[in-house]
Amino acid sequence: MTREYTVISTDDHIIESGDLFGGRLPAAFADRTPWFESTDEIAAWHIPGIEQPIEMSGLSTAAGQKVEEFSPKSKTMDAMRPGCYDSAERLKDMDADGVDAHVCFPTLPGLAGDKFVALEDRDYALALIRAYNDWLVEVWNAPDPERLFGAAILPLWDGEASGAEVRRVAERGLRCISLPSTPGGIPGVDHYPKDSWNPVWEAMSDTGLPAEIHIVSGRNDTSALANMGVGSEIFVCLAPSTNMATCATLIFSGILERYPALKFISAESGIGWLPYFIERIDYTHRKHQFWTRSSIHTAPSELFRRSIFANFISDKAGVEARHLIGIENIMLGTDYPHTDSSWPDTQRVIKEQMGDIPDDERYAICAGNATRVFNL
Amino acid sequence: MTREYTVISTDDHIIESGDLFGGRLPAAFADRTPWFESTDEIAAWHIPGIEQPIEMSGLSTAAGQKVEEFSPKSKTMDAMRPGCYDSAERLKDMDADGVDAHVCFPTLPGLAGDKFVALEDRDYALALIRAYNDWLVEVWNAPDPERLFGAAILPLWDGEASGAEVRRVAERGLRCISLPSTPGGIPGVDHYPKDSWNPVWEAMSDTGLPAEIHIVSGRNDTSALANMGVGSEIFVCLAPSTNMATCATLIFSGILERYPALKFISAESGIGWLPYFIERIDYTHRKHQFWTRSSIHTAPSELFRRSIFANFISDKAGVEARHLIGIENIMLGTDYPHTDSSWPDTQRVIKEQMGDIPDDERYAICAGNATRVFNL
Repeated sequence: MTREYTVISTDDHIIESGDLFGGRLPAAFADRTPWFESTDEIAAWHIPGIEQPIEMSGLSTAAGQKVEEFSPKSKTMDAMRPGCYDSAERLKDMDADGVDAHVCFPTLPGLAGDKFVALEDRDYALALIRAYNDWLVEVWNAPDPERLFGAAILPLWDGEASGAEVRRVAERGLRCISLPSTPGGIPGVDHYPKDSWNPVWEAMSDTGLPAEIHIVSGRNDTSALANMGVGSEIFVCLAPSTNMATCATLIFSGILERYPALKFISAESGIGWLPYFIERIDYTHRKHQFWTRSSIHTAPSELFRRSIFANFISDKAGVEARHLIGIENIMLGTDYPHTDSSWPDTQRVIKEQMGDIPDDERYAICAGNATRVFNL
Repeated sequence: MTREYTVISTDDHIIESGDLFGGRLPAAFADRTPWFESTDEIAAWHIPGIEQPIEMSGLSTAAGQKVEEFSPKSKTMDAMRPGCYDSAERLKDMDADGVDAHVCFPTLPGLAGDKFVALEDRDYALALIRAYNDWLVEVWNAPDPERLFGAAILPLWDGEASGAEVRRVAERGLRCISLPSTPGGIPGVDHYPKDSWNPVWEAMSDTGLPAEIHIVSGRNDTSALANMGVGSEIFVCLAPSTNMATCATLIFSGILERYPALKFISAESGIGWLPYFIERIDYTHRKHQFWTRSSIHTAPSELFRRSIFANFISDKAGVEARHLIGIENIMLGTDYPHTDSSWPDTQRVIKEQMGDIPDDERYAICAGNATRVFNL
């Protein structure tokens, strides 16, 4: 019997802990197995090749806290909800939130695997990446593979190897991959328009796996925003819409025209800027296609609606303008366990934001579109 | 008798030519008077201290051309409409377009004077800046100072001197100043949150002069977008909404709270992303004001609506969502003589985009708001 989904969140996060890599690395790398330290005073990952231990950010483990309590200070495991790091516990938190499924982004390797990708020893990096994806299958998703969808990471410096990993994780039952919003920000990784990415586009097309692209992923610094001399509040405000640049790149580079079966989810980007963006891409192409020697021959809005989907946590302006975006291109995200999360109030948020729209449209946004795009 | 305005464009451009600086520089700099070369083969400015002659970009002088003819190649004066460089001719082109007034940005000194500001000899730079502003009063605006509003430039490296120049140009009758979207991109210029800007905010408050902030002004390169590995079509597409970062900076830095009389016009940014942005600034502040130790105590949307205005050339999504933005915060721009210009079809564009909205709302957007903000 097929599962009926009512609410699918396509933007959530894993907080990794415990013996993730033990037994999952080739023998040659066994002495470089990353290990997890957890005491009353600290929780941190130790990765050979990464100098600083990776602690648990308070902003990434905020589920259940009040806004007055949010803090970037690192946390011990005791100080966070078990749903952050234990997927059986996550299912209970999802139940409490009335949410059927979570698409889960990696945290330890970076949102799109970028910290592993940046390691100097690439054989070792590849081993970590494969081990991580195996752990998603064998541990994280295991309590309920119909409700937990860990997003696979790729050896982004190598198109062929990345394509092969897409096919391997599809075979192993993973539902999606995670790609960076700014691949060129990771040392040794090409921008999306480069042909080196073609094997990834081919593998995605063949397997039907969508790629989630989380905001502000794959950039080692925040240079674009730092140029403004911005503080944290400005960064938080601007971060979602930075995915506008990623969407424009996918559209105008010709990738979406050349590979019509591709599916991308712009994660945590919000949707309220999309009516403007969709109008702007067509206006730009109409007025500037000649002197810019445009790569594409299809209306940009058509490419967008065929291949790009975007999710939001809270976005009344976007819901109001949903028909200018395309009902089929909008999804929900709960961002558990980050600060912007709707948990445990997702049902209230759905009612407030979409209580007055037709049932079929609310269903498409909350579950229908994700059911189709993730091949559930 | 007071002039009645029907359509005011708050985003247009001057193409400078001829003997602009002769007699307007102090004697000490007379031997470094910039000069303009114009032949059958080339038109270019020669500025002592700037190595390369500054030619006339085909994309900045495109008025009247078809989209198929747009080209970045430089132009001679014969190849462009006289309305580009002759303000008496500009008035005729405005009449043909049914437009009463143009707010005119500098081109030669950079949109916000940034090319002059970057000159090493700052005494010389200050002399050029003052001479340029005098030329706006004495030549460019002179054929009709009630219809031509050249935007003054400032010695941005020096807050006190900039404040003094604001007061001087207000005294001379100019209607507005031009400030950069990314001041930190100009060598020696501070980001807006720095206190060195206070004399400018004080002078703007005292004189009532609004500041126009044109998209992609004051950045010597396009590094933020170049990070994406983008081509020209992607750049054109993304450029308008980069002003989102400037608006967020003005709001969250506390400038607008400290100086409630300030008025900024986000020029050529479009308006369709504003419903999203206004919702996002309030959401950000509600959830993140504590851990970020926010500088402000007023709702960000209130600061926006009091002090920030934005103009658009063509933006149906924005017009549709105008009540989420605020009718009083929207203005029109025709972008003459650039490629995105609505000239000579501004009346058709107004009808297409705003034909079905109430008369008082259309009037506010097309003229009423600018009449109020520019103190006409």
